[in-house]
Amino acid sequence: MYPKSLEKVIESLKMLPGVGQKTAERYALSLLEASNDDVEAFSNSLTNMKSSIKYCSICNNLTDEVICAICKDSTRDLSKICVVANPKEVFSIEKSGTYNGVYHVLGGLISTQKGILPDSLNIESLIERSSQSKEIILALNATVEGELTSLYLSKRLEDITTVTRLAFGLPIGGQLDYADDMTLLKAFEGRKKV
Amino acid sequence: MYPKSLEKVIESLKMLPGVGQKTAERYALSLLEASNDDVEAFSNSLTNMKSSIKYCSICNNLTDEVICAICKDSTRDLSKICVVANPKEVFSIEKSGTYNGVYHVLGGLISTQKGILPDSLNIESLIERSSQSKEIILALNATVEGELTSLYLSKRLEDITTVTRLAFGLPIGGQLDYADDMTLLKAFEGRKKV
Repeated sequence: MYPKSLEKVIESLKMLPGVGQKTAERYALSLLEASNDDVEAFSNSLTNMKSSIKYCSICNNLTDEVICAICKDSTRDLSKICVVANPKEVFSIEKSGTYNGVYHVLGGLISTQKGILPDSLNIESLIERSSQSKEIILALNATVEGELTSLYLSKRLEDITTVTRLAFGLPIGGQLDYADDMTLLKAFEGRKKV
Repeated sequence: MYPKSLEKVIESLKMLPGVGQKTAERYALSLLEASNDDVEAFSNSLTNMKSSIKYCSICNNLTDEVICAICKDSTRDLSKICVVANPKEVFSIEKSGTYNGVYHVLGGLISTQKGILPDSLNIESLIERSSQSKEIILALNATVEGELTSLYLSKRLEDITTVTRLAFGLPIGGQLDYADDMTLLKAFEGRKKV
């Protein structure tokens, strides 16, 4: 029903997360109204991203170069390594501005269900790096996979260096009656003397 | 904070309607995980769309060719012309499958606020076409601009052919207590004997 060239853009937009037919149509029609320069820049940025994005040879984070901007930064504390599952978690932590150490991106979590074994993650390179660090901070999701990976890593690393995990508990600004059972349990377990 | 090539994709994605920084980041990271072929197809579809989309020389609807698929279709009733503001409204009506005539896309609505005068819309070509039609159906939004444009068109067309408007009233499946005042007013005005 749409012209073919528009239909193709709609099809491509549907691969974005949470974007269905209606939203894709709205996006495509808005791109049609955008200036030629903007759409060309968008098109070029896509091909350019795919060809130039690499993984940092030290921490496996996304970068345009061989070593990422964080690993290159001489002001950062190299003795602390924060372990995350995916690059987007590095960006979330960086945005909060609460951490000054370096990172290690696993590229996923161990999962018996999905058949992801420790071998397919960047764990050996972490073991190698950890001997030169004072602390490994595990910042993995509080899911079955996250717990499993944390357990595996702490076993492998306990003789090499200090391993810590991020605290679980009530989120700041969160309401007690909206917290789920698991969060409440963790909050009780982790309670502190005031 | 993101690699530059990723940052550029995020910036481009932010031009989509309703997409802010967070959503653009999510979209960009998902595109990074998509296959090279898919992203290249997306990139090509964008440039291709911009170069090949034209406006139909008869009705001003979007098309890849000189005359759109609807105007070309010999099974359609050429004596009825449905007037809409934008191409996306053609697609909405086509999807419903309720109409078998042809269209005329104005390319906007008359607006004193935005300074859009009748001269800048495709009105003269509609006047020319209307002499060969039996009915002009105005399918414009029930907004100030829509009303103004409907009024203007009905004045210009009343001596040439029959001009009708789509009915206003309660939407099917809608609840009375959720209907706004204007819709209720129109529903009362348009009431019919059962």
